[in-house]
Amino acid sequence: MTDQLIDQSVVDQTNEANRKALDADYAHLGEHLARRGIDIDAVLKKVSAYTVAVPSWGVGTGGTRFAKFPGTGEPRDIFDKLEDCSVINQLTRATPNVSLHIPWDKADPNRLKQAASRFGLGFDAMNSNTFSDAPGQQNSYRFGSLANYAKETRQQAIEHNLECIEIGKTIGSKALTVWIGDGSNFPGQVNFTRVFEYYLDAMKAIYADLPSDWKLFTEHKMYEPAFYSTVVQDWGTNYLIATELGDKAQCLVDLGHHAPNVNIEMIVARLIQFKKLGGFHFNDSKYGDDDLDTGSIDPYRLFLVFNELVDAELRQADGFEPAHMLDQSHNVTDPIESLIRSANEVRRAYALALLVDRKALEGYQQSDDALMASETLKVAFRTDVEPILAKARLDANGAIDPIAAYRKAGYRQRVAAVRPAVAAGGGGIV
Amino acid sequence: MTDQLIDQSVVDQTNEANRKALDADYAHLGEHLARRGIDIDAVLKKVSAYTVAVPSWGVGTGGTRFAKFPGTGEPRDIFDKLEDCSVINQLTRATPNVSLHIPWDKADPNRLKQAASRFGLGFDAMNSNTFSDAPGQQNSYRFGSLANYAKETRQQAIEHNLECIEIGKTIGSKALTVWIGDGSNFPGQVNFTRVFEYYLDAMKAIYADLPSDWKLFTEHKMYEPAFYSTVVQDWGTNYLIATELGDKAQCLVDLGHHAPNVNIEMIVARLIQFKKLGGFHFNDSKYGDDDLDTGSIDPYRLFLVFNELVDAELRQADGFEPAHMLDQSHNVTDPIESLIRSANEVRRAYALALLVDRKALEGYQQSDDALMASETLKVAFRTDVEPILAKARLDANGAIDPIAAYRKAGYRQRVAAVRPAVAAGGGGIV
Amino acid sequence: MTDQLIDQSVVDQTNEANRKALDADYAHLGEHLARRGIDIDAVLKKVSAYTVAVPSWGVGTGGTRFAKFPGTGEPRDIFDKLEDCSVINQLTRATPNVSLHIPWDKADPNRLKQAASRFGLGFDAMNSNTFSDAPGQQNSYRFGSLANYAKETRQQAIEHNLECIEIGKTIGSKALTVWIGDGSNFPGQVNFTRVFEYYLDAMKAIYADLPSDWKLFTEHKMYEPAFYSTVVQDWGTNYLIATELGDKAQCLVDLGHHAPNVNIEMIVARLIQFKKLGGFHFNDSKYGDDDLDTGSIDPYRLFLVFNELVDAELRQADGFEPAHMLDQSHNVTDPIESLIRSANEVRRAYALALLVDRKALEGYQQSDDALMASETLKVAFRTDVEPILAKARLDANGAIDPIAAYRKAGYRQRVAAVRPAVAAGGGGIV
Amino acid sequence: MTDQLIDQSVVDQTNEANRKALDADYAHLGEHLARRGIDIDAVLKKVSAYTVAVPSWGVGTGGTRFAKFPGTGEPRDIFDKLEDCSVINQLTRATPNVSLHIPWDKADPNRLKQAASRFGLGFDAMNSNTFSDAPGQQNSYRFGSLANYAKETRQQAIEHNLECIEIGKTIGSKALTVWIGDGSNFPGQVNFTRVFEYYLDAMKAIYADLPSDWKLFTEHKMYEPAFYSTVVQDWGTNYLIATELGDKAQCLVDLGHHAPNVNIEMIVARLIQFKKLGGFHFNDSKYGDDDLDTGSIDPYRLFLVFNELVDAELRQADGFEPAHMLDQSHNVTDPIESLIRSANEVRRAYALALLVDRKALEGYQQSDDALMASETLKVAFRTDVEPILAKARLDANGAIDPIAAYRKAGYRQRVAAVRPAVAAGGGGIV
Repeated sequence: MTDQLIDQSVVDQTNEANRKALDADYAHLGEHLARRGIDIDAVLKKVSAYTVAVPSWGVGTGGTRFAKFPGTGEPRDIFDKLEDCSVINQLTRATPNVSLHIPWDKADPNRLKQAASRFGLGFDAMNSNTFSDAPGQQNSYRFGSLANYAKETRQQAIEHNLECIEIGKTIGSKALTVWIGDGSNFPGQVNFTRVFEYYLDAMKAIYADLPSDWKLFTEHKMYEPAFYSTVVQDWGTNYLIATELGDKAQCLVDLGHHAPNVNIEMIVARLIQFKKLGGFHFNDSKYGDDDLDTGSIDPYRLFLVFNELVDAELRQADGFEPAHMLDQSHNVTDPIESLIRSANEVRRAYALALLVDRKALEGYQQSDDALMASETLKVAFRTDVEPILAKARLDANGAIDPIAAYRKAGYRQRVAAVRPAVAAGGGGIV
Repeated sequence: MTDQLIDQSVVDQTNEANRKALDADYAHLGEHLARRGIDIDAVLKKVSAYTVAVPSWGVGTGGTRFAKFPGTGEPRDIFDKLEDCSVINQLTRATPNVSLHIPWDKADPNRLKQAASRFGLGFDAMNSNTFSDAPGQQNSYRFGSLANYAKETRQQAIEHNLECIEIGKTIGSKALTVWIGDGSNFPGQVNFTRVFEYYLDAMKAIYADLPSDWKLFTEHKMYEPAFYSTVVQDWGTNYLIATELGDKAQCLVDLGHHAPNVNIEMIVARLIQFKKLGGFHFNDSKYGDDDLDTGSIDPYRLFLVFNELVDAELRQADGFEPAHMLDQSHNVTDPIESLIRSANEVRRAYALALLVDRKALEGYQQSDDALMASETLKVAFRTDVEPILAKARLDANGAIDPIAAYRKAGYRQRVAAVRPAVAAGGGGIV
Repeated sequence: MTDQLIDQSVVDQTNEANRKALDADYAHLGEHLARRGIDIDAVLKKVSAYTVAVPSWGVGTGGTRFAKFPGTGEPRDIFDKLEDCSVINQLTRATPNVSLHIPWDKADPNRLKQAASRFGLGFDAMNSNTFSDAPGQQNSYRFGSLANYAKETRQQAIEHNLECIEIGKTIGSKALTVWIGDGSNFPGQVNFTRVFEYYLDAMKAIYADLPSDWKLFTEHKMYEPAFYSTVVQDWGTNYLIATELGDKAQCLVDLGHHAPNVNIEMIVARLIQFKKLGGFHFNDSKYGDDDLDTGSIDPYRLFLVFNELVDAELRQADGFEPAHMLDQSHNVTDPIESLIRSANEVRRAYALALLVDRKALEGYQQSDDALMASETLKVAFRTDVEPILAKARLDANGAIDPIAAYRKAGYRQRVAAVRPAVAAGGGGIV
Repeated sequence: MTDQLIDQSVVDQTNEANRKALDADYAHLGEHLARRGIDIDAVLKKVSAYTVAVPSWGVGTGGTRFAKFPGTGEPRDIFDKLEDCSVINQLTRATPNVSLHIPWDKADPNRLKQAASRFGLGFDAMNSNTFSDAPGQQNSYRFGSLANYAKETRQQAIEHNLECIEIGKTIGSKALTVWIGDGSNFPGQVNFTRVFEYYLDAMKAIYADLPSDWKLFTEHKMYEPAFYSTVVQDWGTNYLIATELGDKAQCLVDLGHHAPNVNIEMIVARLIQFKKLGGFHFNDSKYGDDDLDTGSIDPYRLFLVFNELVDAELRQADGFEPAHMLDQSHNVTDPIESLIRSANEVRRAYALALLVDRKALEGYQQSDDALMASETLKVAFRTDVEPILAKARLDANGAIDPIAAYRKAGYRQRVAAVRPAVAAGGGGIV
């Protein structure tokens, strides 16, 4: 039995208030889906089994270069963060794993394991950080890390990644995610080819030390923090990396890391086809890497990504085993609430994609029936699957309405009483 | 006689080394331009008279939400900043005015005036800051300032702007620039109309207290720090504001604050035509509000903006008197160097625009000769006017090669010995 | 009694097959909405009363500069087009009005009226065309129309618009929509200010002849067919036009005519606030002015637009009376089918926006509860309102499943037997 | 001795008028460059040897889906086109090769060879066309060609490409360029993976028949004519294709075929590094695939692309032998004039890139001197190399001012007297 930081009776109480309506909605949705040839319980089962990792850093309030406005009860360290993560999982029953960021979450690995297991949590991919300087660090990453012109800086970045693997081995992680901010702000600042060679060499050194049952995820991003060129700027470069490194290397897709208008679901399909889809960092965006809550801006795009994933799952695509994680910056909401709803949104997209009539779809595709093909997706998308999601939570002792339960339980106020207030920051950067 | 922080003999020495080449280049360019019907000395005179303000905050190293990597000798306060600004002006002779940001630059106004006049510097527009919380501030701007739903927060933001005017009156400023980060991160978070009404009401309160010989500049920006909607999101809204407020209110155009692909020079033309162009924040960008050095990414776009400005200048457009300022974030360069070259780039764009054969251009326009019309601009643009810029600096006791002179003078090392090192920052915000 | 080109018994037959399921779905949705405090019948009533105009040119197959692939049974003239439009309305009961394009639809006005009234159709806004040359036209619009440098060309374009008004007066239209392609392909080709002055003068001449009970809609577009600058490039310029002209002039928003990432719903809110929202051209897009079927790419964005419209409707915003029209290019679908489903999608967005709990929303906005505010919109959006839409159609003798009924009725095959095949086109333009 | 359609005495006459100024400018530029350590004659030699192919279809007036406004003297067939191309080469001496488009340019291969050799012209890459239907074609490409769901359509498209190879073999071409418009307009319309498999299979069939000394170029494009997904949407997919096919397959980069803000020069560097850069379609754009004259919108971007090319040339990068071609749509200019100046612009970018002080650049890169590194590029870029370009033309009997010579020779008027006027087109596609 694991510890629960939200009093289960509060959860039960809010569930009681919603149960009757849920039962009616679920029953009717079941009838409705049956008419469409879909077994709601089969969908429920799949949805219940679907989980998404939460990032440790996601439970702290984020900010921009202009300012940071902390909330109350900000976590002080990884142990506070794990407590917050446990709350998310208790209410959603969808986020049993936490992804750590080193050095932010550096701590005695045994204490980490203990703290996590107390709440029944496990650890997802390890994340290295060579995009900012840690206090006391020998060589600065101002001009790059794994792709820095200076050999000693590259070596330092390599060793940091190896250290992340070591920590991960102890706590049961099975993957390393490498995202770097390396690039340039001005034409001419770096030689594109040279720094990519540096990067590849460095990654090969890291890959060489990767345990045989681990995966190495590399993440592309168009820009920011580099504003003219970024070393791993798109999926094309990411694919080159994964190919150069080997079978354990795969590409990570962060939904917010692409050029305007790019068709992301198609990139996902290509990576699946060529066995290089490592996984996702889920979030949503309207402009750049806005890191907003998943599904909050363009829910149909999220659905279309999951449409590819379910398609690959159903045809058992070779090498298809993507890792799913949320990666968001919560600037104006309680991070726990944002992660709760985002976990739900990811599950929603998965559930909706399961409703697609794939046989009909294929028939329309083969007969060039563009209208009915697209309507087939829309019919699935506009189904309200909240009853399925709610039931999946309820059946696992989570909350029908997790935000309401969270608020009622007063968790934020409770930790705010213990965790000291953090001063608002910002200034100097315009 | 004003103080000079760069030993003039160093400047003279580097000038001596370049003078002969400059003379030859200037002489030949003069001949070449004479063939095109242009009097080089007339251009030189105009260029020499052209100045651009530097922002006090620009002399500190900038950063991103991911990290900040400070340089050496970072200015500790506004007085250090004024010293750095004086160096820029001494070498370029193009930046006699400094724009302050309150509360960052808050200090005894008399000391400010004294410090500036020591170097022969003046003060440009005052900038208020309601996009981040100052220590001890009563109401947080997390959810907005002038457009906050809470009346007391709006009032606090109004008063801050009034205080900026007061300070500005003392030190000889003649304009207030208002940029706010107000907006929302999620659909539904704010009612677009309601918060714009709040904003307009607040601005009217500020405008009411504006001295009669001042201008009020409002600055639009598409996004960041708000990632779904921004209250003053584009020039359309900015124009509405300036119109609602009155004749002293005009629009400020920051080159990096527009949607991808937008034709900025056309916006400039529209604002000139409707007498609402207040001025510019110059910088350059490839992706979003990258705040890179002016002219470093798309120098032709900068030229096209100046093509509109020179056109308006020559036809003496009614109400045309724009304020020019640099506004950049220097993350990977010495800020003084970036501002030196950027001041130069702005002057270059102005000089190039002066070379446009406007009579020929008008003729081609009237005869639908698209090819020769566009070539007329290109002929001007591809002229190398560096001899004119260099001579303008030289004639005013600046440096032919200001970067070289700056480096040779060892200013950065000198201040680094006095100003304490600043720790690298970042982390926590992904 | 009006003529019906689809045998009503076919419609009835398909309705019969779906009626029981519809009844069950509608009943349950009613219960569900009642729990949320919403009266489904009130929503049904509003939705039933909501209509959207179809463009005459929309029933022909569209294409790109690369090729045009006509379908079978392409309409030969406006009378064929009116027949096709009548089919759309018969099945959807949502599109009683047709918008004409002159000179494409030029015909004896009396015959036009007669043809339309045979099907119970009316006429929406008149559309002028000065973006292409009509056979035998005196002056070419290659270099512009209302903003051409040549006075006689501008005059010709003015007269064409006046002619459109004349035709419209005869057939009962009450609005003129002016969209021009005027602009430039190269920097320097036109003087931005000069051509905008020409444009404004020309529009004033047209406005002067506008009947007192008419509206004049101007439509902005960022680019295409002009690829460097467009005279009416955005809502800012569009607003200036409407303001310069007078109260009868308002802005038309085509969803596909904006820069990447632009927040369109916010533009809609601004235009409503300043009493200048004339109406919409609905479609969807992923890249540029793709003119895809409404709601097919980003249905949440469409919902957010309607969220503004319903908000204005409910608070009875002054001057709020927007015209709604579809404007799409159907390249790979049967145009009738695309218009049927698009009419449905527009109604869907309206219905969903009606479900927003506006009181709760306002409360969350006032208390800075960004998460619950955005969830309030999402709760409305994810409701499956298809039963309401279907019932609205059914109650008005339309089809529960209009695409199925249309296909079953064999209309396309029937007209294909009469209307001659059109050769595929394209080539020469790369 | 080849035929010349421009009277050489006209060329000589205009050259005479400009020669003295050119001599002075060239002499001074030589001195100036010598000071920078650059031998102007060595640059002249390289520039003189640099050529770029022109597309046969480029000499006809282009258009948009909205309208086409033909000029006078439009070429009637490939033989007229070859005459126009000869004029471009005569005046620029930079475009000795013409690229054909089949079936548009289909003709007796021997006549083609004869017609070209008459003017000393050769043939560049062959271009197949499966994005529009040719008259009498069995299967339509409406729903795709090489990636069509129907096998017989794919086979037809394969055979068309094989035919292009056959024609090319006869006339001396050594490359086939394949650009397809295949994709989809709606989510669901096609299965991304399926159609890419179809495409790859079809391309393998074509590749199998490619002569051993030929190259196969595939061209990616983000969108248009397909508006939701495009099969070969970006360089990542293009790279996969080239890798799947084999060593003779390489990627073609059209400057206008990318998402907004994408760093194209970096893509060029990646393709060079991985030996897959096949060549270029040069043009310029502000919004989408605007196909404007090369260098007319963002000349610095063009320079940055050539900076990569010259870098690869100088370090003799393995497998680096890119094909250079113009690919533009001339809607508002005389196509011959646009191609003349565009050929010049490409040469200009090459000349400017040759001026980069690469040793200094590398030093700045290694010492993280971002400012001086970027200034090193800017110093090269702002040099006015027109004297070098003009002298390269003059020395080869071309024109110092080719546009002026062309106009003076009255070529357009001459052919307009012979070639019948073409009616303006457009309409029906909105």
